[in-house]
Amino acid sequence: MIAIGGATRLYALLGDPITQVRAPGLLNPVLARRGTDAVLVPVHVPAAALPEVVAGLRQVANLHGMLVTVPHKAALLDLADRATDRAHRAGSVNALRREADGTWSADTFDGDGFVRGLVAAGHDPRGRRVCVVGAGGAGSAIAVALLDAGVAALHLADTDRARLATLGGRLSAAYPGRVDAASRPRLADVDLAVNATPVGLRPTDPPPFPVSELPARAVVADIIMTPAETALLRAARDRGLPAHPGEPMLTHQIDGYLDFFGL
Amino acid sequence: MIAIGGATRLYALLGDPITQVRAPGLLNPVLARRGTDAVLVPVHVPAAALPEVVAGLRQVANLHGMLVTVPHKAALLDLADRATDRAHRAGSVNALRREADGTWSADTFDGDGFVRGLVAAGHDPRGRRVCVVGAGGAGSAIAVALLDAGVAALHLADTDRARLATLGGRLSAAYPGRVDAASRPRLADVDLAVNATPVGLRPTDPPPFPVSELPARAVVADIIMTPAETALLRAARDRGLPAHPGEPMLTHQIDGYLDFFGL
Repeated sequence: MIAIGGATRLYALLGDPITQVRAPGLLNPVLARRGTDAVLVPVHVPAAALPEVVAGLRQVANLHGMLVTVPHKAALLDLADRATDRAHRAGSVNALRREADGTWSADTFDGDGFVRGLVAAGHDPRGRRVCVVGAGGAGSAIAVALLDAGVAALHLADTDRARLATLGGRLSAAYPGRVDAASRPRLADVDLAVNATPVGLRPTDPPPFPVSELPARAVVADIIMTPAETALLRAARDRGLPAHPGEPMLTHQIDGYLDFFGL
Repeated sequence: MIAIGGATRLYALLGDPITQVRAPGLLNPVLARRGTDAVLVPVHVPAAALPEVVAGLRQVANLHGMLVTVPHKAALLDLADRATDRAHRAGSVNALRREADGTWSADTFDGDGFVRGLVAAGHDPRGRRVCVVGAGGAGSAIAVALLDAGVAALHLADTDRARLATLGGRLSAAYPGRVDAASRPRLADVDLAVNATPVGLRPTDPPPFPVSELPARAVVADIIMTPAETALLRAARDRGLPAHPGEPMLTHQIDGYLDFFGL
């Protein structure tokens, strides 16, 4: 860990809850090894306070970037001054940086990190049929990256019908004929099912969808990192299905963050 | 240095400029040695942005306290929900903590730290005549602490006549017969002269007052910590006067901060 002094550049990770976040524990040792005088700190921001907190943080002259996790990924797209095409398609961001002129640019690395982690684990999604459960910040970014990676069909599911319709409509327009959306997960015909909801963060959470409905050999992926084994992944293992945990999505984003922030 | 994770409690040090601050380098190793999962980070806040930044930081649920340096010490008194008597007498604060009910309480440790550092260096101010140059956040806290420590007379100086009149009036009422105020430092009859202005932070700054006007054996104190030897302290040494640097004021506040924050 770098020794923090007056010249240390700040990076803030915004989320609610916050204690489960893994990025500071992964990124700060990388910065320290490189001798970079910068630190990523967890910043616990309740949703109702987000606009006021971001308005304040934007004015902090030694804050050079923000990372964003649940539940703020969609809201931060609107609070940034500009965002990449993939972030607009996803409707969410997970990283913002201060430009030289003081404005803030945003991008999302969730989807790219998720797909790279999946490929590294031997589960290339190209040509596969997938179900993404959760059309929030992470789910939308993952859906975009899976479509960009060439999945044959993507079923999107979310109990929030307004959110589902918005993302489903946007993705159907951008990737015609490959996307459908339903409030209940469509699991019977997929090669990969992804939990992109926060269900599983609490130790008492049940699986967010029934693995019993999946075909044999379907891969079950969770984006939750803490706990490392959620009820969903446990259920997948119990059924003998390949279980893909949350951590690779983050570890495969680290290089993207460092490039984006110029660190 | 502690490894920063999602459960790490945040403390922010607000100032402008910020690169010179020493408190993170002093406090964080103490926290790490104690195994306390908390970190103090420098937060660079231009004066015009202070209300908006503080409004945002107050909403950050894992931010448990703030330290305050130039030029925000007076403004933060108004942005806190309550402050100690000595902070109200000084008209400035340098530490705020979040209470269990979410409100923010403030105190100032500058004056107490300054006097304790002075006494530890063998310069007990009791019964002495002193001149404090600078009626801002630090100067006002130092003036209150010197009066509480029993100085016989305190000359207050500041080129900002409105600020001088406000603090001079408040101190004359609280400590009748021992305080006078003037725009030009009254140096000829004192045992101790204190620079409590930011003049000296820039390497090219001249001494904030002429040591040539001081009596032989007068102690010259500076509150500036970076650089460690300011032009003022160099001029004092050149004249053979005892020179008291800025760092003891801070090191003698660390225990006060830890108590105040319950760390």
